[in-house]
Amino acid sequence: MLDSASHSHFCIILEMTSERIGSALNEFSTCDIGDALVKLKYPNGGFLDGITMYSPDRHDAKLFGQVITVKMVDAACKTSPSLPKHFCDYNEAGKVMFVSQPHGMYSACWGGLMTTRAKYLGAKGVVVDGRFRDIGEHRDMDFPVFARGQSILGSNGFTRASEVNIPVQFKDELWIQPGDYIMGDADGVVVIPVSHIDAVVEFCTTRKKIDELTFEALRSGEPIGEAIKRLRQ
Amino acid sequence: MLDSASHSHFCIILEMTSERIGSALNEFSTCDIGDALVKLKYPNGGFLDGITMYSPDRHDAKLFGQVITVKMVDAACKTSPSLPKHFCDYNEAGKVMFVSQPHGMYSACWGGLMTTRAKYLGAKGVVVDGRFRDIGEHRDMDFPVFARGQSILGSNGFTRASEVNIPVQFKDELWIQPGDYIMGDADGVVVIPVSHIDAVVEFCTTRKKIDELTFEALRSGEPIGEAIKRLRQ
Amino acid sequence: MLDSASHSHFCIILEMTSERIGSALNEFSTCDIGDALVKLKYPNGGFLDGITMYSPDRHDAKLFGQVITVKMVDAACKTSPSLPKHFCDYNEAGKVMFVSQPHGMYSACWGGLMTTRAKYLGAKGVVVDGRFRDIGEHRDMDFPVFARGQSILGSNGFTRASEVNIPVQFKDELWIQPGDYIMGDADGVVVIPVSHIDAVVEFCTTRKKIDELTFEALRSGEPIGEAIKRLRQ
Repeated sequence: MLDSASHSHFCIILEMTSERIGSALNEFSTCDIGDALVKLKYPNGGFLDGITMYSPDRHDAKLFGQVITVKMVDAACKTSPSLPKHFCDYNEAGKVMFVSQPHGMYSACWGGLMTTRAKYLGAKGVVVDGRFRDIGEHRDMDFPVFARGQSILGSNGFTRASEVNIPVQFKDELWIQPGDYIMGDADGVVVIPVSHIDAVVEFCTTRKKIDELTFEALRSGEPIGEAIKRLRQ
Repeated sequence: MLDSASHSHFCIILEMTSERIGSALNEFSTCDIGDALVKLKYPNGGFLDGITMYSPDRHDAKLFGQVITVKMVDAACKTSPSLPKHFCDYNEAGKVMFVSQPHGMYSACWGGLMTTRAKYLGAKGVVVDGRFRDIGEHRDMDFPVFARGQSILGSNGFTRASEVNIPVQFKDELWIQPGDYIMGDADGVVVIPVSHIDAVVEFCTTRKKIDELTFEALRSGEPIGEAIKRLRQ
Repeated sequence: MLDSASHSHFCIILEMTSERIGSALNEFSTCDIGDALVKLKYPNGGFLDGITMYSPDRHDAKLFGQVITVKMVDAACKTSPSLPKHFCDYNEAGKVMFVSQPHGMYSACWGGLMTTRAKYLGAKGVVVDGRFRDIGEHRDMDFPVFARGQSILGSNGFTRASEVNIPVQFKDELWIQPGDYIMGDADGVVVIPVSHIDAVVEFCTTRKKIDELTFEALRSGEPIGEAIKRLRQ
C-alpha cells in the first residue's frame, strides 16, 4: 500500500507518462494513426466515420486528448441511470469529451453553454456522435467541436445524459472506452486505445520516415510504384 | 365596408404590425426559436432538418421573412394545376420564397436567373426543400440561398411549378403555410406559424435574459448544473 | 498506312482538335453542359451526383480534361485482373484521373502521395467516385480533388487497383469511358462523351447568348416568365 507521498510521486510519474504518450502520438495525423490501427487489426482502424470538424473554422486545426465518455439516452427513458450533476461538469483540463447520442435524433446535445463551461474547465474539445448547435459560438470561442451533424433544437424533451466514463459503442465492434485517446483533424476522427499506443507510435514513427522519403522521391520524378516498393519493404 | 382611404390606412397598420413582429423575432436565433416551438409542442419544433445555408458564404449571415410557398411537381405530371406566370415572378419585397420540390430528384429548381429576378423584386432570400445550382452566382449577388442540396441540372424535363401560396408539407406533421415566418442561419432553418409568434417572442425574450446570465455565471466558474438550476427555475 | 512523318503530322492535327475541343467546352460551366446533355437525352445529363469539390479551397475553381479511368476492386478479390504498375503512374499531362471505388467502403483510395505523383506527371486533377484523404496536402499543392467523401484510412487491406482505361459504371445507364471529358466546379461534376461534344458546344453556345440577354432583361425588371418566353423561343 502506498503512503501519501509515494502515491503523489506515483501520480506524477503516471502523468508524465501520459504526457509523453500524448506528445508522441500528437506528432502524427489521424491518417497515420488510422493506418497503424488497421495494421494492428483494431476494429474499423479506430475511424469514427461520419464525424467531421465544424469548429474551429481552420483546416489545419487538430484536436487531441484523452477521452471522457458521456452516454445520452432518450429523455423518455425511465429505466436508465441518472447523473448526480450536469454531464458537462465532468469535463477535465486537457481532456476531450466524447458524447454518444442515440442515433437518428434530430436534436442537439451540445451547444454554446457547454462549450463555455468545458473551456473554463480546460477541456480541449468535444466529439459528438450526434448533433450540436450554436456553431458561431464555438467558432468565436475557438473551441474544437466535431460532430455527426447540426441542429437548431436543444436536448430538452429529446435526450438526457445517463452515464459518464463508461464504454460507449460507436459502431459494430468499435467501442470508445474512457481513457482512450482521440484525435480529430480535417480528415476525420480516430480513437486510440491505451493498449495499442506503443505499437501505434512505433508504426507511425517508421511510416512517417518512409513517407517523407517517398514524397522526396516522387518530387524527383520516381514512379510511385517503384518508390513504394523500394522504400516500404 | 372600408373606403379606399380607410383601407390603405388599415393596410399601413397591418404592415406596421408585421414589421413589429419581424423585428421582435429577428432579435433571436433559429436555436432560440426552435426551443420555444418545442416547448409549445409545435411539430419538430419547426426545424427544417436537412436544409442548410449555401449562400452567402458568411457564417454570421441570417435570413428572415414571411413565406411565399411554391409547390413543384414532376414535369411529367399532367393532372396537377399550372400557374399563369413563372413562379419566380411571385416573389415580393421583404419576403422569402419557400420552394418545395418532390423528394429524391437530382435536378435543381432554383438558379442564378431566379436569384436575379427575386433580388430585383426585393425578396430577402429563398429556402429550397430540394436542390439549387449556380452557387457562385448567388454568392456574387450576396443573395441568401438555403437548400437540401446542389445540382448541375436545371428543372427542364424534371419539375415544373404547380401552385403558389398553398400549404406545402415538409415532413410528417410539419407543414409550411403561406404567411408563416421563416428564419435561416448557420445552425439551420426554422418556420414560425403566425399563430405562435406572440408565445415564441415571450419565451425567447425570457430565455435570452436567462442565457445571458448563465453565460456570465459560467465564465465566472459556476458549474453548469447549478447555474441552470438557479437561473432557469 | 502512314509513314512516320505523316503519322506525327496526323497526331499533331488530332491534338489540335482535342485542344480546340477542350477550349471550346471550357468556355462553359457544368450547369451549361448538364442542360445540353439532358436535352440530348444523355443518361442523367452526365451529372455525377454526389461528387463534390474538396480541393482547391476556392469557390471559383474548375477542373476540366480528358479522362483516364481506374477501376478499384475489393482487396480480397482474387479473380479480378491486376495492373503491372501502380495505377497512379498512369496519369498523363493535361488529363484527369477518374477513380471508381466499390461503393460503401469507408477507406480512401486517393491521398497526398498520389497527388504528388499526379502533379509531377502534369495531371490536371482527380475525380474519385469514392473517398480520399489528406485534404490539407491537396489544398497545399493546389491540386483539384473531387470525391464522394473523406476518410482517414488508406487503401491497404481495403481496395486495390484492378484495371485502367476501361469503361466504369457511375450509376444505372451512366458510364465513364476512357477518353470522355470531365468537368468539375463548385456546382458539381459532369462527364461529356466525345460523341456528344459538337452538339454540346452548339447547344451551350446558343444558350449562353440567350442567358446573357435574359440576365440583362431581368436586371432591367422584365418578368422572368416573359423574358424566357421572348428569348428562348
